[in-house]
Formats: sequence, structure tokens, C-alpha cells
Amino acid sequence: MKKIINFKRKLAKFNDLWSPKIISEFNEQEIKLVKLKGDFVSHKHDKTDEVFIVLEGKLKIEFKDKIAELNKGEMIVIPSGEKHKPFSDEECKIILIERKNTINTGGEDHYLKSPNDIWI
Amino acid sequence: MKKIINFKRKLAKFNDLWSPKIISEFNEQEIKLVKLKGDFVSHKHDKTDEVFIVLEGKLKIEFKDKIAELNKGEMIVIPSGEKHKPFSDEECKIILIERKNTINTGGEDHYLKSPNDIWI
Repeated sequence: MKKIINFKRKLAKFNDLWSPKIISEFNEQEIKLVKLKGDFVSHKHDKTDEVFIVLEGKLKIEFKDKIAELNKGEMIVIPSGEKHKPFSDEECKIILIERKNTINTGGEDHYLKSPNDIWI
Repeated sequence: MKKIINFKRKLAKFNDLWSPKIISEFNEQEIKLVKLKGDFVSHKHDKTDEVFIVLEGKLKIEFKDKIAELNKGEMIVIPSGEKHKPFSDEECKIILIERKNTINTGGEDHYLKSPNDIWI
């Protein structure tokens, strides 16, 4: 901790999609960067709320009752237990904040399930 | 929750300095916006790590052993218990993430002590 983290420099270190990379941690939470494009799987996290902050591009999230569209400089908090399906037409770069040890697919065995302990 | 929050629109709602405004919460943490200029008091938080993310301007933080300079698009995590003194020559706009009910001065009775429950 106490290290200055530059989002652009960290984002330049990877290109894989839907694969969160940890950049820092605080209070049992992890801060991750993710690049998104196309469709993710609909899923939920039973033990964590999830913060999405858009750094570049446009992120869409489909809920049961609506579709949220987030642009650069916008954020949303998804309550634990709430089904959501992130998707994006163009590549989108985001910050994700959630409890440590969270699985991106909510635990479901899906080809987009990613390791949850990769630091960059 | 599940509301889209636009940082610029929220920042336009206040002008007071060193006075964190809550914009969202998740996992017992609060996300706040703050405008800073000049010198804050050196202080520490015994019960929370503290995340600073710079949205606009340049933030400096004096620690016992060094001064950190953060530009737009950069972040730092200050571990709980660590003395720090934020300061800024020009007005700087930041996101602050910390446990609920954190006092900006670490609890010290200082003229810059701010209410910790103001939502915008």
C-alpha cells in the first residue's frame, strides 16, 4: 500500500477481456481493473456488493427490471444477490471494487470464469 | 443502490473544501467526493484504510517518510493508523473510499472537522 497507482499504466499491462486484475486492496475489499467487450454471463454475487466505475467507453448492465448505461465518469453499485449481465458494444475499461476472493461469474462454471487472484 | 452516479454532476452540487459528501455505499464502506485546496491537518484513521482517487487536479499527501504526488487518473491507499496530511496548491477533486462513519480529521477536534453523514 501507499504506492501511487496510475490506471492508464496498469491498463496497458493486459489485453484479455472479462478478466479482472487486482491493483490494490483496502478494508477486506479489492480494487480491480477489467476490460470488457461483448456479452458476459448473467450472474449474481451472494456475499458482496459490487462497484463499477467506467474509465473509458460505455458499459451496459442488464438487470431483471432495466438496462443501465454507464459512460466514462459514471459509477453504479450492484447490491449482493442481484442478477446482472454486463455487456458492451465497444471495448470498455472499468474499475471494479468488491470483497476479496470474489469470482467474476458469481461461482458459476462458465467459460468466462476467471482466476480471482491475478495482481498487475 | 443501482442508481447511475455521474461524478461531474455530483461535484457541481457543492463548493465547500475539505468536506466529504457521500455519493454511495457498499459492503460497509462509503464512497465520497471531496474538493481540496490548501493544507489539511495531519491525522490518522485507526479503524479504516482510506482510498484516494484523483478526478481533477493534483493531490499531495505528506507522510512521515515521503510526499506522494497524485495526478488525475491515479490512486493511493493509506493504511489505517498511518499519519498523513493531504494538501493541494490548486483545487483538486477526489473520490474517497473508507469505512462508514469515518471522521475526516481522524476524530481530532479541528476547525476542519466535517460532518460525516452528508449525502449529495
